[in-house]
Amino acid sequence: MSLKRKKISVIGGGFTGATTAFLLAQKELGDVVLVDIPQMENPTKGKALDMLEASPVQGFDSNITGTSNYEDTAGSDVVVITAGIARKPGMSRDDLVQTNQKVMKSVTQEIVKHSPDCHIVVLTNPVDAMTYTVYKESGFPKNRVIGQSGVLDSARFRTFVAQELNLSVKDITGFVLGGHGDDMVPLVRYSYAGGIPLETLIPKERLDAIVERTRKGGGEIVNLLGNGSAYYAPAASLVEMVEAILKDQRRVLPSIAYLEGEYGYEGIYFGVPTILGANGIEKVIELELTDEEKAALDKSAQAVRNVMDVLA
Amino acid sequence: MSLKRKKISVIGGGFTGATTAFLLAQKELGDVVLVDIPQMENPTKGKALDMLEASPVQGFDSNITGTSNYEDTAGSDVVVITAGIARKPGMSRDDLVQTNQKVMKSVTQEIVKHSPDCHIVVLTNPVDAMTYTVYKESGFPKNRVIGQSGVLDSARFRTFVAQELNLSVKDITGFVLGGHGDDMVPLVRYSYAGGIPLETLIPKERLDAIVERTRKGGGEIVNLLGNGSAYYAPAASLVEMVEAILKDQRRVLPSIAYLEGEYGYEGIYFGVPTILGANGIEKVIELELTDEEKAALDKSAQAVRNVMDVLA
Amino acid sequence: MSLKRKKISVIGGGFTGATTAFLLAQKELGDVVLVDIPQMENPTKGKALDMLEASPVQGFDSNITGTSNYEDTAGSDVVVITAGIARKPGMSRDDLVQTNQKVMKSVTQEIVKHSPDCHIVVLTNPVDAMTYTVYKESGFPKNRVIGQSGVLDSARFRTFVAQELNLSVKDITGFVLGGHGDDMVPLVRYSYAGGIPLETLIPKERLDAIVERTRKGGGEIVNLLGNGSAYYAPAASLVEMVEAILKDQRRVLPSIAYLEGEYGYEGIYFGVPTILGANGIEKVIELELTDEEKAALDKSAQAVRNVMDVLA
Amino acid sequence: MSLKRKKISVIGGGFTGATTAFLLAQKELGDVVLVDIPQMENPTKGKALDMLEASPVQGFDSNITGTSNYEDTAGSDVVVITAGIARKPGMSRDDLVQTNQKVMKSVTQEIVKHSPDCHIVVLTNPVDAMTYTVYKESGFPKNRVIGQSGVLDSARFRTFVAQELNLSVKDITGFVLGGHGDDMVPLVRYSYAGGIPLETLIPKERLDAIVERTRKGGGEIVNLLGNGSAYYAPAASLVEMVEAILKDQRRVLPSIAYLEGEYGYEGIYFGVPTILGANGIEKVIELELTDEEKAALDKSAQAVRNVMDVLA
Repeated sequence: MSLKRKKISVIGGGFTGATTAFLLAQKELGDVVLVDIPQMENPTKGKALDMLEASPVQGFDSNITGTSNYEDTAGSDVVVITAGIARKPGMSRDDLVQTNQKVMKSVTQEIVKHSPDCHIVVLTNPVDAMTYTVYKESGFPKNRVIGQSGVLDSARFRTFVAQELNLSVKDITGFVLGGHGDDMVPLVRYSYAGGIPLETLIPKERLDAIVERTRKGGGEIVNLLGNGSAYYAPAASLVEMVEAILKDQRRVLPSIAYLEGEYGYEGIYFGVPTILGANGIEKVIELELTDEEKAALDKSAQAVRNVMDVLA
Repeated sequence: MSLKRKKISVIGGGFTGATTAFLLAQKELGDVVLVDIPQMENPTKGKALDMLEASPVQGFDSNITGTSNYEDTAGSDVVVITAGIARKPGMSRDDLVQTNQKVMKSVTQEIVKHSPDCHIVVLTNPVDAMTYTVYKESGFPKNRVIGQSGVLDSARFRTFVAQELNLSVKDITGFVLGGHGDDMVPLVRYSYAGGIPLETLIPKERLDAIVERTRKGGGEIVNLLGNGSAYYAPAASLVEMVEAILKDQRRVLPSIAYLEGEYGYEGIYFGVPTILGANGIEKVIELELTDEEKAALDKSAQAVRNVMDVLA
Repeated sequence: MSLKRKKISVIGGGFTGATTAFLLAQKELGDVVLVDIPQMENPTKGKALDMLEASPVQGFDSNITGTSNYEDTAGSDVVVITAGIARKPGMSRDDLVQTNQKVMKSVTQEIVKHSPDCHIVVLTNPVDAMTYTVYKESGFPKNRVIGQSGVLDSARFRTFVAQELNLSVKDITGFVLGGHGDDMVPLVRYSYAGGIPLETLIPKERLDAIVERTRKGGGEIVNLLGNGSAYYAPAASLVEMVEAILKDQRRVLPSIAYLEGEYGYEGIYFGVPTILGANGIEKVIELELTDEEKAALDKSAQAVRNVMDVLA
Repeated sequence: MSLKRKKISVIGGGFTGATTAFLLAQKELGDVVLVDIPQMENPTKGKALDMLEASPVQGFDSNITGTSNYEDTAGSDVVVITAGIARKPGMSRDDLVQTNQKVMKSVTQEIVKHSPDCHIVVLTNPVDAMTYTVYKESGFPKNRVIGQSGVLDSARFRTFVAQELNLSVKDITGFVLGGHGDDMVPLVRYSYAGGIPLETLIPKERLDAIVERTRKGGGEIVNLLGNGSAYYAPAASLVEMVEAILKDQRRVLPSIAYLEGEYGYEGIYFGVPTILGANGIEKVIELELTDEEKAALDKSAQAVRNVMDVLA
C-alpha cells in the first residue's frame, strides 16, 4: 500500500496545457509534469515554475515541473494530450489531420513507453479522429483512451442557458453528444434548469439560438481573440474528467469513447454519455433518442468518419 | 442592507489581468470586469467569455465580462491595475517610467470617476512609483491605494525554501520588504519552516543563494519564457490581497504602503508589513531591524526615490 | 460601500444549530452568532469556542460566538431558526405545534427587533406551519421568510439514487415538493442521473422503494440513532439556502414559500421550486404537474392545513 | 497501478469520531468507515447515513458507513482511534488509564488484523500513554503509530492569539510541545503573527495568560459544556494529520512520536515537531531549546512517564 502522490502528465505546454496543469495542481490531484518539445523546453520550465510559485499563496501542495524529456513522465497515472497544431489560414483540413496524426503517434509512443498503465485523455483536434489514433497507436484497452469534447460543449451550453435565465450555473445541466464540431448534437431534451426541462422555460426560438451558439462556441472565441483559441474552459473540462478518474468518482460525463455497436456505431471514437471512474470509461450509457436526434447523431458520426478517412 | 454581489474590476487584459480575473471568479469573491483599451476589446471579451464558460465545470457563480468601457466598472469595490507596458529591449528605464505613469494617470481618472469609493491595488511596474502615481492622481486616502510586490516576492522565496527542505509550502512563511527589484530585502530572520527559523535549518551559503534567487525571481521567469513575464504567481498574489480586503480578513501581508514616517521614510510608497482588511491597509507594522537590515532597506528606498525622480 | 463581513445568526444551539454554524463558518460566509436560551448559555459558548478553535486548522476566517443575548445578533443579514422542541413519546402533535409556535413567536420578536432587514430561514418542525408563524409574527415581506425542507428531502433522495446506481452524488438531481412529512411529493419525473431520467435507469419497483425511503428519511435516522434526530444533512441544507441568499446565486432550490395562488394554493407556506437570491425567494417556479402529481400535492397541502388549524 | 479510493477508518463513533469522519469525507480524502461497539451499531449507522445524506448538498464523493464489524475496515490506509472512555467524577486517573489501555489493546488487535499496512493516529486520552500502548500492541514500526495533541493545542493557542491581536488565524503560527495536559509546553519563542515574533506584539502578561489558557484549553470547553468535551477542534486536528499522510504533504506538524534519544528522551511517546508524509512520521525535528524550555519539557516528560507507570 503506497501513499505516494498521484502523477499527471500534460503533453503540450501551450495555453491549454499550461492552464490544465495549473488547475490540476490547484486541486491537489497529484504532481504535474508539463511536457513540450525540446525547442520549447525553457518556456515550459518557465511556466511550470511560475505556477509553482503561486502554490504558497493558493495553498496547494502539488509539484509542477516543465520538461521536454518524457522520462520525467514515467509512471504517470493519467496523461493528458493537448499537443498538436491549430488550423492556420490556408491550411487544408487534411493537412491538419495528417500533421496532428503524426504528433499523436509520436507522443503516444513516448507515453506508452514510460507509463504503460496510464489513462490517456485527448484534447487535440480533430479530437474524435485523434483519440482514435492514440487508441490504435497505444494498444491500450479502449476504456483507458478517452477524448474530451462533450464536457466543454455542455459547459458552453450551460453558460448560455444560465445567462438566458439569469440563474446559477450550478443548477443548469446539459448534454452535448456526437463529434466535436458544427455537427455536434446538443440534446435539449436532456437539459434542465434545477431539474426543469429547458423547453418549458425558454421559448423555442431562443433555445434554438443557444443550440446554434453552442455549436459555434469554439469559433466564437477564436473570432473574438483574433489570434488563438479558447483554453480556460477546455482546460477546466479536461480537469473534470481527470478528477473523475483519479478519485474514482463515477461521474456521468459525456466522453469521446470507442464504440463497438453502441448507438449502432462500430469502430469509431464518438461523443456519448459515459461513466468515468478508476477504470477510465466504466460504461457507455445508451440514451433513447428520437428519430430526429438519431438522424443528427448519424450526420455527426459521418462527419467523424470523413475525418478518419484522411488518417494515414 | 444589500446582499448584492461584490464587484471587482481588473484593468489590463493581458495574461496577468486575465489570470487575476479567473482566480477572483473561482473564489466567488464577486463579479469581475476585465478592462482593456478599445483596440483590445474583442480579445478581452473573448478571454472573459472563455473563463465564464469554465464556470459550470469549476462550479463558481461569478460573472466575468470583458470591456473597454469604464462605465462597466461603475461601483466596483476593488479595482486592480495591471495595465501598462513592459520594458522592451532598447527602452530606457526612464521611458518605461514615463509611459506607464501616463497610463496610470489616465486609468486612475476613469476608476475614480466610476468607483469613487473603491480600493485600488496596483501591480504595474515599477510598482512603487506607479502606486504613488495612482495615489496622487486618485486623491484617495492612502489606505485605499495599495501596491503589490511583497506577497509575490515572499511566495517565490517560500517556494524555493520548500524545495530546498522538501517540505509543504503550507508551512513555509517568509517576509520580503522594500522596493520591488534587485534591492528588495528578504528578511530571512523573520522566515520559518513550521515556525522554525530557517537559519537553523539551511546552511548560510544555501540560504544566501535562495535570497539571491528570490531577488532575481522575476528575471528568472522572463529568461525562461523568452518572451513575456510571469503571470500565475503575480495574479495569485493580487487575489490574496483582494480577498483579504473583500472578506475583511485582517491578514498580515507585505504591501506597498504610503509611508509617513514609518521606518523613518516620508512620502514614498514602499514594501512593508501591513494588516489588510475592509479598510484596505488597516495598519503598517513596524518591525525591529538590525543595522544591516536597515541599511539594506535604506538602499532599497533610495532606489525607489530614484525612480520617483523620473516621474513627470 | 461597506466591506464589513456578513453576519448570520443561528437560533438554537442544539446539534443542528451548532452544525449549521460550523458549516457556515467553514465557507467564510460571514461571522456567526449561535443563540440559545439563558440556561444553555455556557454550553452554547462552549460549542462556539470549540468550533472557533478549529478555524486555524481548517483555515477559515469567520468569528463564531455563543450567546443567550439577542443583542449580539443585531444587524444580522440572515437568521436561521432551529430552536424548538422535538416530539417526545406521549406528546400529542397538537402539543408539539403549540409549544413550538410559542417558541417561534418569541424568537421572531427578538429577531425582528435586532435585525429588521434580515432574511429568516426556518427549520423547526412542523416546518410549514412554523414558517407561517414566523412570517405572520415578523411582519416581513414573504420573500424574506423561508422554510427548509425540500433541499434536505431531495438530498436524501439523491443519496439513495446515487447508491442504487453506484454513481457520483454530484450528477444526481432530484426534486421533492410539498409539505415536509410522509405526504411529501418526490417528483421522480423531474429527477435525473447526469440528465438521464431516473425512470429509464431504475426499475419502477426500486424507484418506488427509494421514494418511500425518502418520505420516511427523517424517521429512518431517528430510529437508528435511538435518541435524537438527523442534524448533518439538515444543517448542510440550511447552509446551501443561506449561501444562495448571501452570494445572490439565484439557485433553483425547493423552498417552503408563501403561496398566493401559485399551484392553486392560497395563504399557506408550502414546498415548491423557487429561485433563491439576494432578495430571498426571488420567484416561485410553477411546474406542470400530472393529475396524479397534483393530487399528491393536494393531499400534502391538506396535511399542512391540518397542522395550521392547530395554531393558536 | 490502482486508482481506487483511499480508505480511512475511525474507531469510536462519539462526537469526535463522527465529526472526524465528516470532515475527512468533506475533503474527499477517501471512503470513511465509522466503527463503534456492537451495542452502538445502530446509532453509528445513523450518524454515518446522516452524514452521507449531506454529501449531495456539500458536493463530496466519499462513502461513509457505520459499523461494529472490523471486517468493514479491511485494507484501511489510515485508522484513527478516538475510542475509549472519558474520566468521570470519582474515577481515579489510574482507573482511566487502565480502562482505556484495555480498549486500545483490543481495538489495536482488530486494526492490525484487518489493515496490517495502515497508519494509526491516536486521540484517546491520556494520549501519550495510549499511543505507546497502541504502538506496543500493534508491532508496527514507530513511524506508523502517531498521537495527536500538538496540532490541537497549537490551534487553541493560535485562536487566542488571533483574538488578542484581531488578526486572521491564517497568519498566526504556534508550536506546543510536550505531553498533552497541564504540563504541555507552548513554545512562545517559536510562535508568530505573520512571521513577527509574538513577544514583540503582545505584552508579557497577556502572553502568559494566553499560554495558561492554552494549557487549560480542554478544561475550558469541558467546563462550558457541562457535559462532555471538545470535539470540533480535536476532529479538525486529526484530519489535518491524516491529510498530510494521505497526500504525502510533508507538513511540519507537532505529533506525539516515539522518541529514541531525540531531545534526550528514550522509549516514550511525546509531543515533538515532526514531518508528516506518506511514511507517517518522516522525521522528528530537534529544536534548540533554552534551559527554561528544556526544564519545562523535562517536567512534561516526567508527567508522561508517571502515567506510563500505571500501564498494566
